[in-house]
Amino acid sequence: MSHDDLLSLGAWVLSRRLARRELSAETLVRACLARIAEREPELQAFVVVDAEGALAQARALDAGALRGLLHGLPLGVKDLFDTAELPTAYGSPIYAGHRPAADAAAVALCREAGAVVLGKTVTTEFATFHPGPTRNPHHPEHTPGGSSSGSAAAVAAAMVPLALGTQTAASVIRPAAFCGVVGYKPSFGRVSRAGVKSLSETLDTVGGFGHGVRDAALLGAVLTGDLRLLQWQDAAAPRIGLCPTPEWPQADADTQATWAQAVAALAPLAAEWVDAALPAGFATLVPLHKAIMAHEAARALAHERLRHREQLSPALRSLLDDGLAVSGQVQAANQAAAAPLRQQMDALFARHDVLLAPSTLGTAPAGLQATGDPLFCRAWTLLGLPCVHLPFSRGANGLPVGLQLVGRHGDDHRLLAWAEWAMQRLVR
Amino acid sequence: MSHDDLLSLGAWVLSRRLARRELSAETLVRACLARIAEREPELQAFVVVDAEGALAQARALDAGALRGLLHGLPLGVKDLFDTAELPTAYGSPIYAGHRPAADAAAVALCREAGAVVLGKTVTTEFATFHPGPTRNPHHPEHTPGGSSSGSAAAVAAAMVPLALGTQTAASVIRPAAFCGVVGYKPSFGRVSRAGVKSLSETLDTVGGFGHGVRDAALLGAVLTGDLRLLQWQDAAAPRIGLCPTPEWPQADADTQATWAQAVAALAPLAAEWVDAALPAGFATLVPLHKAIMAHEAARALAHERLRHREQLSPALRSLLDDGLAVSGQVQAANQAAAAPLRQQMDALFARHDVLLAPSTLGTAPAGLQATGDPLFCRAWTLLGLPCVHLPFSRGANGLPVGLQLVGRHGDDHRLLAWAEWAMQRLVR
Repeated sequence: MSHDDLLSLGAWVLSRRLARRELSAETLVRACLARIAEREPELQAFVVVDAEGALAQARALDAGALRGLLHGLPLGVKDLFDTAELPTAYGSPIYAGHRPAADAAAVALCREAGAVVLGKTVTTEFATFHPGPTRNPHHPEHTPGGSSSGSAAAVAAAMVPLALGTQTAASVIRPAAFCGVVGYKPSFGRVSRAGVKSLSETLDTVGGFGHGVRDAALLGAVLTGDLRLLQWQDAAAPRIGLCPTPEWPQADADTQATWAQAVAALAPLAAEWVDAALPAGFATLVPLHKAIMAHEAARALAHERLRHREQLSPALRSLLDDGLAVSGQVQAANQAAAAPLRQQMDALFARHDVLLAPSTLGTAPAGLQATGDPLFCRAWTLLGLPCVHLPFSRGANGLPVGLQLVGRHGDDHRLLAWAEWAMQRLVR
Repeated sequence: MSHDDLLSLGAWVLSRRLARRELSAETLVRACLARIAEREPELQAFVVVDAEGALAQARALDAGALRGLLHGLPLGVKDLFDTAELPTAYGSPIYAGHRPAADAAAVALCREAGAVVLGKTVTTEFATFHPGPTRNPHHPEHTPGGSSSGSAAAVAAAMVPLALGTQTAASVIRPAAFCGVVGYKPSFGRVSRAGVKSLSETLDTVGGFGHGVRDAALLGAVLTGDLRLLQWQDAAAPRIGLCPTPEWPQADADTQATWAQAVAALAPLAAEWVDAALPAGFATLVPLHKAIMAHEAARALAHERLRHREQLSPALRSLLDDGLAVSGQVQAANQAAAAPLRQQMDALFARHDVLLAPSTLGTAPAGLQATGDPLFCRAWTLLGLPCVHLPFSRGANGLPVGLQLVGRHGDDHRLLAWAEWAMQRLVR
């Protein structure tokens, strides 16, 4: 089997072959390294590739007992996660050459499950706006999205089968959409953020990327410790609630065409296909998210703001200044305004199994100076709901586009099963 | 004024004098250092005292403009918080000599407000059970409580007017009770945990210690950015809901006597004094807390569990093994069981302004091998509610004991105002 054929299989199928010892971890790592040698000079998805370390890890795995669900699978780690063996700069010159004392919990859990940490992937500056050098694998003049830019691009280019990311506004779903891979943001609170550089206390969420839903689910099962995430087979047709959201007029023609495509493919097959009756205050979630994120960022990055202001990008300085203008009293009021919406949305899931919503305004914008608009993800992140991006379509310019499914808090396993159900019917 | 008189004033009064330049930061730091020289050899509240650094900070503050609410106030920092200038070992030999790259957000915010970081205070191992060397300032053969052992002892001995702590089970309220100071645990989610060693994703809460309620409120205002926490004057008499909790039979004679004392002092003055009608499932909160904390600890400390198991205490290894036995599926069910109790408890605050509850089984137990039972704090921590320990009484053995007030989520400012109201009537 050629390298290309091997790398096209996705993490789930690869994990089966690795577990049966039909495929060695070393062979797979070498295939990834070969792909990286081809694509990385253009894409710049990685901050560092640890070829020697990965080969050593792979050989140790091949020589030993099966470790766990990720046995032998190469993993890209967003450079927002601490790694004891690799430098960790959080996308900022302040931390150039920084070497943490420990692996982030998510990294350690993946290692425990047998993953091979292949390298650190590019993040925007502290997971905010200022982009890194990564290019979109589908068109080098377009952004890969952010902030998990390198992880999404690396999976899209099959340089790694799986990669870790985080989402505070749209940082998993948006790069997944722009790069055409599955992105999975778990329910808030389910995955340890220990050792992940904090941006926003009540929003930051660890997630990941894979080629298909089952691949992302495999990573999700390790991150959450919930093996029900692997039960994605044979889900019954879901009751789908339609959530174009109040911001729908900002969706461009590509996203509108993608929505029409979903209607044609899924409406006849879903158990129900009805507009979701969003609570009255739903449209306030976007401005609430902005204010809450700014307030929390100005506090989480207090050390950098006070000691290294000159090394922050103008965009980040501006975000932190905005955050300082949001007092703790206003923050308390904003959180109090969001809380009942979480309860009302939870009640909505009595009528719908999953919600269908746009992921992005359209395909990846041209240019590498920005990573795209997080608009369609802010509300779901603030609500803390699990989300899966479904990469099933192409825009008029040929770049990837898709939609996201949103699940009930804590129902990640059902969400992933219905995401697999949907993808099987959207991509034929 | 003698050192002793000065140090007895508490942070709030000291902050007024510092702000009016009637007292210099250097004078106050020198008073604290003198007290530390007297008491620290016995108490061992500090991991490190940075005398030279603190004096340099104080002189810079005295020479410059007023910085903020904590201008010139010496601060003890639990050694669970990262500090860029001081070693940070999280109470574990694994991190002996570790020097973080940045200050934790809470530390940076206190510095921004003008606090002088005087040193790092003893924490139990990763804020769990295994104690440090700290002794109770009221009796050297008794535990100061944990995990924020050094911070509570340092404030109780007036070695610093304020200190930072964290609570995952009882780690602010219990040492405050055993050492006879005010401990304040804010509403979950309101204070950034950036740079605080993670133990439990959904439980860890940054809080602090002061001599009186207004002192702790001053620190709380900086941590939350909510200036309403300073409006503790002239609160109207509250409607007090009585919550001895289902575990009340485990309270000893001292705690029972303290409760009777509160009845005598407060019942005639409260706007209402009635039993709180706790939701049916309230008694499940203690076992839920234990299981959730264990699951999350086994994941947050995954790196230490995998790489440094031999350097973990037997008690912590046991906790992590318990946590590994709680699957992600069980964790999801436990979180789903806790969520409606949070809503039902929130509704309870329509009828009560604050809840009165025990803090500890009794006074500090004899011995330094354990830090006491967290029983009476587990439910409130799992509910995420703000808590204030009121140190108003003494047990039969002369050691401090008191009760806690619990507020509605997000109503920290009201809770602190009623805590001040209660203390003025309990201590005459």
